Amino acid sequence: MKNIVIGKKSEIDKRAIIGQKTGRKIKSRKLSIGRKAKIRSNSVIYEGSKIGNNLETGHNVLIREENVIGNNLCIWTNSIIDYRCKIGNNVKIQNNCYVAQFTTIEDDAFLGPGVVIANDRYPVSPSTPKYLKGPVIKKGAKIGANVTLLPGVTIGEYSLIGGGAVVVSDIPPGSVAFGNPAAVKKTIDQLINPYSKKKVYAKILPKLKKILKKK
Amino acid sequence: MKNIVIGKKSEIDKRAIIGQKTGRKIKSRKLSIGRKAKIRSNSVIYEGSKIGNNLETGHNVLIREENVIGNNLCIWTNSIIDYRCKIGNNVKIQNNCYVAQFTTIEDDAFLGPGVVIANDRYPVSPSTPKYLKGPVIKKGAKIGANVTLLPGVTIGEYSLIGGGAVVVSDIPPGSVAFGNPAAVKKTIDQLINPYSKKKVYAKILPKLKKILKKK
Amino acid sequence: MKNIVIGKKSEIDKRAIIGQKTGRKIKSRKLSIGRKAKIRSNSVIYEGSKIGNNLETGHNVLIREENVIGNNLCIWTNSIIDYRCKIGNNVKIQNNCYVAQFTTIEDDAFLGPGVVIANDRYPVSPSTPKYLKGPVIKKGAKIGANVTLLPGVTIGEYSLIGGGAVVVSDIPPGSVAFGNPAAVKKTIDQLINPYSKKKVYAKILPKLKKILKKK
Repeated sequence: MKNIVIGKKSEIDKRAIIGQKTGRKIKSRKLSIGRKAKIRSNSVIYEGSKIGNNLETGHNVLIREENVIGNNLCIWTNSIIDYRCKIGNNVKIQNNCYVAQFTTIEDDAFLGPGVVIANDRYPVSPSTPKYLKGPVIKKGAKIGANVTLLPGVTIGEYSLIGGGAVVVSDIPPGSVAFGNPAAVKKTIDQLINPYSKKKVYAKILPKLKKILKKK
Repeated sequence: MKNIVIGKKSEIDKRAIIGQKTGRKIKSRKLSIGRKAKIRSNSVIYEGSKIGNNLETGHNVLIREENVIGNNLCIWTNSIIDYRCKIGNNVKIQNNCYVAQFTTIEDDAFLGPGVVIANDRYPVSPSTPKYLKGPVIKKGAKIGANVTLLPGVTIGEYSLIGGGAVVVSDIPPGSVAFGNPAAVKKTIDQLINPYSKKKVYAKILPKLKKILKKK
Repeated sequence: MKNIVIGKKSEIDKRAIIGQKTGRKIKSRKLSIGRKAKIRSNSVIYEGSKIGNNLETGHNVLIREENVIGNNLCIWTNSIIDYRCKIGNNVKIQNNCYVAQFTTIEDDAFLGPGVVIANDRYPVSPSTPKYLKGPVIKKGAKIGANVTLLPGVTIGEYSLIGGGAVVVSDIPPGSVAFGNPAAVKKTIDQLINPYSKKKVYAKILPKLKKILKKK
């Protein structure tokens, strides 16, 4: 179909739907997906998004329109990216997640299973950026299983949000936060692997230091 | 097929399943869906429900048997309405929600993404109304992202339940409640838009007053 | 297809996918499913699992490879069992659940809707048992709606975890636990049905006693 460009060496299950029409008015209906995409059964990708190389989806994944997505996105079964999100490179989204409109997810971020992202502080608002504020998940942040992110919160670089947390306010870079409401309990620097007795995120700490210096 | 009536001007994706058989014994197998339904790919609607006009579903939506549903239901991708629920007019159910058997949702209510509704206080009980108590979500109530509603709770008219809350007891009308367990923190009258400095729910407050007077 | 054995009297929807290939290296690609399976539309069962008799799935269920599953599993719409899990007999998994790799679920256990199971304490780890620890849900345990189970926790025999709980540490047998973090609040012995005034789990208590004696 015109308006759909899919890179070479892609494997698309015959039951996937590529280029689904939206009822919304959008600027461009062009859908481009990079090389080596692997899209599994009953996943639906709307028109009007730009997706990099090596996209890999589970089954029944939904990616709506007007998304800009980098290379190497893995998004597993039943997860949804709603419209007008910005997603960087090397992002991994586990099963059963919901990424709300206007969410930003930077490079190397990770969403565990069942993460739910909200964008509307006082529902039901009009679907425009004036009213809806998606969270910003900064570079390398990791969001645990079944976490809820409230509208407009920022999760700092390389922070780890513990499973089941409800994040209602910004979390600084390099933090470990959990609970309802989520509170910062320590820094990722303090996480020690119980077996090796080494720092869990030793490789990340120099990158985090650079970021903290700049701020 | 006989037993299935679908109103005029409806658009039903060829991959949707309309009139799926149930293994349960039910009084009537008739499925009626009103005018202008829009049902997207791989959604499944069972026999034996009555649904009003302007139904709109996302992808992979499941609506089971013996439901009575009003006009203008929007229900987005991967959400499920289990059997024997009562749903009013103008209800909006976001993505990845689960509405348990015997739930009542009144007019104008809103369920954010990932809402999970329970109905069985001491699982596993027999699937009858004697044992299973679905929540009652009263007119205009708004349930935030990833909220859990425990069996039999009532959410009062126009109340707002904050994201990630776990509601274990009744919430009075016009309340703002959140936390685990959810507690009433203020009233919707007190919510001020930070930009306009106006009351967020100004239009709703007169309706709420009427309801509070009656009680 | 060779490598796929399905027992007699099974009903498999034509839109289900049985024997889906995995990209992972696995020891055996043989998939066996016992007698009287009932598999509904768009459910996907990977190669390389062994499943007992009377499997019943909802729609869009995903069961990955290298799982060993007993008889009488019921797993409802949109739920996922990731790879390398061990699941006993008579297990019931409600809608929208996610069961992570390396999870053990013993006989007679129950997962309510929206349960999310984690296995990676410090994401993102390599997908091996050295790093990933799934929870162990012991015989007859009941996990409430939208509960989060953190990596490696054990839920004791016949315990009941209340809806919305976040379980971060082991729960002893016969406990009632809830909250975030989940704490033991009472024992199942203390649960009284408000109508009949009888103990809710009267039939289970002798079995629990035997287990507690052995420990």
